[in-house]
Amino acid sequence: MDDDAADIVATAHALADAARAQTLPLFRSPALKPDNKLTKGYDPVTEADRAAERAMRDILAVRRPHDAIIGEEYGAAPGTSGMTWVLDPIDGTRAFISGAPSWGTLIGVTDSDGQALFGLVDQPFTDERFAGGLQVAEVTGPRGRHPLRVRTDVDLADAILMTTFPELSGVGAAAAFARVAGAVRLTRYGLDCYAYALLAAGHVDLVVESGLQTYDVVAPIAVIRAAGGIVTDWQGGPAEPGGQIIAAASPALHAAALHLLGAQ
Amino acid sequence: MDDDAADIVATAHALADAARAQTLPLFRSPALKPDNKLTKGYDPVTEADRAAERAMRDILAVRRPHDAIIGEEYGAAPGTSGMTWVLDPIDGTRAFISGAPSWGTLIGVTDSDGQALFGLVDQPFTDERFAGGLQVAEVTGPRGRHPLRVRTDVDLADAILMTTFPELSGVGAAAAFARVAGAVRLTRYGLDCYAYALLAAGHVDLVVESGLQTYDVVAPIAVIRAAGGIVTDWQGGPAEPGGQIIAAASPALHAAALHLLGAQ
Repeated sequence: MDDDAADIVATAHALADAARAQTLPLFRSPALKPDNKLTKGYDPVTEADRAAERAMRDILAVRRPHDAIIGEEYGAAPGTSGMTWVLDPIDGTRAFISGAPSWGTLIGVTDSDGQALFGLVDQPFTDERFAGGLQVAEVTGPRGRHPLRVRTDVDLADAILMTTFPELSGVGAAAAFARVAGAVRLTRYGLDCYAYALLAAGHVDLVVESGLQTYDVVAPIAVIRAAGGIVTDWQGGPAEPGGQIIAAASPALHAAALHLLGAQ
Repeated sequence: MDDDAADIVATAHALADAARAQTLPLFRSPALKPDNKLTKGYDPVTEADRAAERAMRDILAVRRPHDAIIGEEYGAAPGTSGMTWVLDPIDGTRAFISGAPSWGTLIGVTDSDGQALFGLVDQPFTDERFAGGLQVAEVTGPRGRHPLRVRTDVDLADAILMTTFPELSGVGAAAAFARVAGAVRLTRYGLDCYAYALLAAGHVDLVVESGLQTYDVVAPIAVIRAAGGIVTDWQGGPAEPGGQIIAAASPALHAAALHLLGAQ
């Protein structure tokens, strides 16, 4: 790992530590008062989301002033280095306000081509941090430090599939998802970014979602690719922009699920 | 608390400790090989389920030989005391085999009228244990020991609703659930027994499920009632037998949700 790569990794961990200091004290706290971002519908945001993103941006301003930033709560800031930090201070704010430990802080870095270079998926309550990219693929937590590696010996008929919302957004998306769900062994809901971490760690085989933003996916993409998995959009194209996303543990599963998603 | 009550509580904790020693080493282990209980369909069971129930039954044989037992994996054993231990070694085996920390060990005790007397909901990976009944209502875990208390200041329109499977079993059940989901602020899926623990701890307001067994509900009922909440079937009758279950944080929420569940 060269010096800049080492600095990116170290900076990402510093960001995750700073975000934890803001999110964890408010998780399950009666002081937490969610706001609604929408006038029609419900898209919750909390002071924990905002404070965690501010803390991360403050660190980047000092340590990586030439890199660009895209953050869920405070938008885009330009840079000159070609690197972009893609931040979701709390992925799964709905889980966060429900007390469920499936939310996470997502810290991704893309290169000048927009490709995911490095990512962290951090779950403060379970004290687990999943890291991937720049020659890193590991989880650290209460069970110590372990390499991340997808499992590749599971056929579609025996696969475990995850998604967050049963009502997938987009025309035809629910039907497409149902075709995949009908072909696998087990479908589970509700895990937000934690589902991608479980795929990278070799516990589940497929994650299929829609309506995602770039800050929802860059960090998971880096972690899953580093663990040997595949992440694309439902047409097999780049996943970094977000939208309809499929993550798979093996090329065979990816091809089989992509075929079902595209079937009419 | 009288001597027998104290012994019931202490025995329940001993059972939970013994179950943890069997479940936690197999959670996320490559050595875990799920079996299917069904010839048609999928109902997974693992050596972790079986070993944990055996460990609990071994303790009861020594400490509480006159009590009856109902366990998910090894069935019913009669007793003479009027007390029944109602055991689910792993509630949420599907979560367990997926690596998701929403499964739990459920240890309930009913009296001679079949009413929930005491219960533990134990989540070994997050190291949280929720206890209720016999003058106990508390959670112990990485954040220490805290009293359990439902929140009662949330209206139906602002409520958080949980259920495990979006496809609720039973005629009309999915439509009934959809009426409740349409009336609340937020609906979340997939948390198994952990959803009941979050309700008892004051983080969510409603849990609505169907197709439950008595060993899925006795422990959660005891914990939620001890925390001030209400658990009944969808007709407002006793929840201990299982079936269609609603748990609510307040009488007002319970009445409003029951009305929606029963509407045609």
